[in-house]
Amino acid sequence: MTTLTPSPLSPLESTFKRLHNLGHLASIAGWDQAAMMPTKGNEARAAAMAELEVLMHQMLTDPALPAQFDAAAQAVTADDERAALREMRRQWEQTNRLPQDLVEAQSLAGARCEHAWRAQRKTNDWQSFLPNFREVVKLAREEAHLLAAATGSTPYEALMDKFEPGAKEQSIEALFGAVKTWLPDLIRKVIDKQQSETVVEATGPFGIEQQRALGVEVMGLLGFDFEGGRLDISTHPFCGGVPEDVRITTRYNEATFVPSLMGVIHETGHARYEQRLPRNAIHLPVGLARSMGIHESQSLSFEMQLARNPAFMQLIAPLVKKHLGDQDAFSASNLARTVTRVEQGFIRVDADELTYPAHVILRFEIERALINGQIEAEDIPALWDQKMVAYLGVDTQGNFTNGCMQDIHWPSGMFGYFPSYTLGAMYAAQYFATLRRLHPDLDARIASGDLAPVWNWLDANIWSQASRWTTDELVTRATGEPLNAAHFRAHLESRYLA
Amino acid sequence: MTTLTPSPLSPLESTFKRLHNLGHLASIAGWDQAAMMPTKGNEARAAAMAELEVLMHQMLTDPALPAQFDAAAQAVTADDERAALREMRRQWEQTNRLPQDLVEAQSLAGARCEHAWRAQRKTNDWQSFLPNFREVVKLAREEAHLLAAATGSTPYEALMDKFEPGAKEQSIEALFGAVKTWLPDLIRKVIDKQQSETVVEATGPFGIEQQRALGVEVMGLLGFDFEGGRLDISTHPFCGGVPEDVRITTRYNEATFVPSLMGVIHETGHARYEQRLPRNAIHLPVGLARSMGIHESQSLSFEMQLARNPAFMQLIAPLVKKHLGDQDAFSASNLARTVTRVEQGFIRVDADELTYPAHVILRFEIERALINGQIEAEDIPALWDQKMVAYLGVDTQGNFTNGCMQDIHWPSGMFGYFPSYTLGAMYAAQYFATLRRLHPDLDARIASGDLAPVWNWLDANIWSQASRWTTDELVTRATGEPLNAAHFRAHLESRYLA
Repeated sequence: MTTLTPSPLSPLESTFKRLHNLGHLASIAGWDQAAMMPTKGNEARAAAMAELEVLMHQMLTDPALPAQFDAAAQAVTADDERAALREMRRQWEQTNRLPQDLVEAQSLAGARCEHAWRAQRKTNDWQSFLPNFREVVKLAREEAHLLAAATGSTPYEALMDKFEPGAKEQSIEALFGAVKTWLPDLIRKVIDKQQSETVVEATGPFGIEQQRALGVEVMGLLGFDFEGGRLDISTHPFCGGVPEDVRITTRYNEATFVPSLMGVIHETGHARYEQRLPRNAIHLPVGLARSMGIHESQSLSFEMQLARNPAFMQLIAPLVKKHLGDQDAFSASNLARTVTRVEQGFIRVDADELTYPAHVILRFEIERALINGQIEAEDIPALWDQKMVAYLGVDTQGNFTNGCMQDIHWPSGMFGYFPSYTLGAMYAAQYFATLRRLHPDLDARIASGDLAPVWNWLDANIWSQASRWTTDELVTRATGEPLNAAHFRAHLESRYLA
Repeated sequence: MTTLTPSPLSPLESTFKRLHNLGHLASIAGWDQAAMMPTKGNEARAAAMAELEVLMHQMLTDPALPAQFDAAAQAVTADDERAALREMRRQWEQTNRLPQDLVEAQSLAGARCEHAWRAQRKTNDWQSFLPNFREVVKLAREEAHLLAAATGSTPYEALMDKFEPGAKEQSIEALFGAVKTWLPDLIRKVIDKQQSETVVEATGPFGIEQQRALGVEVMGLLGFDFEGGRLDISTHPFCGGVPEDVRITTRYNEATFVPSLMGVIHETGHARYEQRLPRNAIHLPVGLARSMGIHESQSLSFEMQLARNPAFMQLIAPLVKKHLGDQDAFSASNLARTVTRVEQGFIRVDADELTYPAHVILRFEIERALINGQIEAEDIPALWDQKMVAYLGVDTQGNFTNGCMQDIHWPSGMFGYFPSYTLGAMYAAQYFATLRRLHPDLDARIASGDLAPVWNWLDANIWSQASRWTTDELVTRATGEPLNAAHFRAHLESRYLA
């Protein structure tokens, strides 16, 4: 991408540069809130963040902008300017399509519902949760209808579009529908197969300092730039900060080191995408990550394609022994069996690679019906139970805590996000299918510590491209075809049934 | 203080509330920059902070404000409203008296000079430092003249006023002039006396985790509220964050634990002032700390009056042993001798209680002459040498590194701050003279761990008063008289010569 100044975009560029600067402070303060802030800082922080949001909203609803967008649309000729304009317009339109009072009502209702949910989930109290949640759903439907009316999409599609620009409900339904035809059977077969396998359990406790040192060394191996980022602790692990200063977090459990190690690898995938975004357009939407699905495709390339691969366990088994002591459980083969163990469980965030898509498809089907008005909030538990039995053979009746109340997304008003997780897993499988065609010796190279083929390919095809292309264009340019779930199925069958 | 809404101040109050919210983000981002940020985050952070400064500057130069200040001045009747208005007006006037291009030029010149200084100080390179520094001095003089013209003060006074509202050059000169008549002689006497004392040196290394645990326990003893603040690490220790979430830092040296422990106690003094500021006016200037001298009076009440008192060492000697192991050096009496050892050294920040004022008075005299135009930048080294010999008997000729280039204040363009350190020490001595009159058994109570008399007095007389009164009023209300350096002299003679 060339520098965009001076150009027909200059006045817009200066507005988005200011938004970028203020967004930097919002990101760092958000990270601080989750990783550093003591409890009594909360009220003042919330007021400060709200003040910043108001300012950023004012900038994006400035009455001077429509004329600037019109003038830019007339004047741009270069392709990269057209892309920069497309992404600015997208953000501007999303902000201006919603009345401010709806945005505020959603923010309030979501905060109230989520706050109460934290206690209600623990006490399995669906009935007390329902009134708050109905309000959240009502406002999300209003938002969805306003956005859908402006673009001719379905209401659910309009919400999904916030996370997956251009994603179509029908395409997702077709993709997920196909997965449903083979996934439940594959899960059963793998569980049968794994019954004859022995997995040696590692003996804890594993000190937090030792786990952290292991995580830091693996991050280094994965190319994380510690001069442009940090690893800290938070209750819910995430990748935050800004591309120039990426903050990832994890949490430690002294009884088991695998979740934290895999979590650190996952967030490192997000982090490297951010750290390698090209710097010349970092202040514009076109210079940022393409979509949440593409973001997840990076974390899952690292966690699923790379780290749960037996070749990678050959590479890091010595590091595990170095930091956590020598145990039989730390052989490369036992570690590989540990991180590919499949179990039909209740909880999405604890799910393995194979059962995870079932959790996502279930949520996609329910939230789509909810937002499009085919079901009401009170219909969710029965649907949840029915789908958990069908996809995972698990009975969740009466178990709201570990059933339909387990995720923060819905209580906080976030609908349309869940598909991104499984889209990411599918993209990642497709990338690695391409990589294996280019490098038939990929596993041997991974085992030997030569990860350059992976980094070079991701850098050239994904990281350096930011939002230059639509998601379909990006994936087609990278892999020769649009998203094709056959690669995901082939990957799972090859890893889990071979 | 009563709630100020609705009142004649309402429109102003809403502007200052917004400034308070944005200032929150500036403070947290500033703390992050010093304590957390990796190096590559610097450029983006600087741009974000500058953006925020521009916004805050715009708010404070809003053309609607003069009429609002006029209307408020006509309408306020209550004393607390008058005080709130006085402090808002002070901040507004300070911002509006300087043209924006001067502020920007100062910011640039200070950043350039300070950046180069970091390397030049190490190589003792005064000659290369001088051209950058001349520009900083030139702009500071412009600022001082503009501010002085608006208020009828001297130029140096105008700069000092930013840190010590209402401070008069003549009063400071009289105070410091009096100290000069007895301090050098007192220093010599104490050094003579201490030559016959044995101080057992503690044997390191002292682990950072152990030093941190000791610091945290002492902070708890001193009433630091960990639900409203944190302790972290930075190169230059400071107290930052916001009153609702106070972030203090320290640095650790495994060879010696005393500087970090005393540093933590010092910053805890700053922190408790912030944590106990009344919450009903925390969004207004009147609700913030009175001045830098009063702020230093809190850190020095904790560090000098309280912690270097032998009674306090009786209290914490068991904690030192608990965290750092049992050594002869950790007896209460040996610890007390350790923290009251007097030495004539080069470095202000390493100076003891007795020699510190000499370092400050020297800087006051030089920077005053510099800003008022009686000397030029190139005259500083000779003056420095001459005064170091006179006040401390130390020869610094040719030693710029540990001479006139040792502090960050001047390279960064901060003139008029140094007096605050010694004013703070004097205020603290005066508070404790009052406390000892009220509680003749104060030392016995401190040794027994009953610090309530100190907290109650500071809370009632300083912390809860914020900027409700002028500095003179505050100190007179608290101690029955304005600043009186006799208490400082009496304190030093009693502690060091008795």
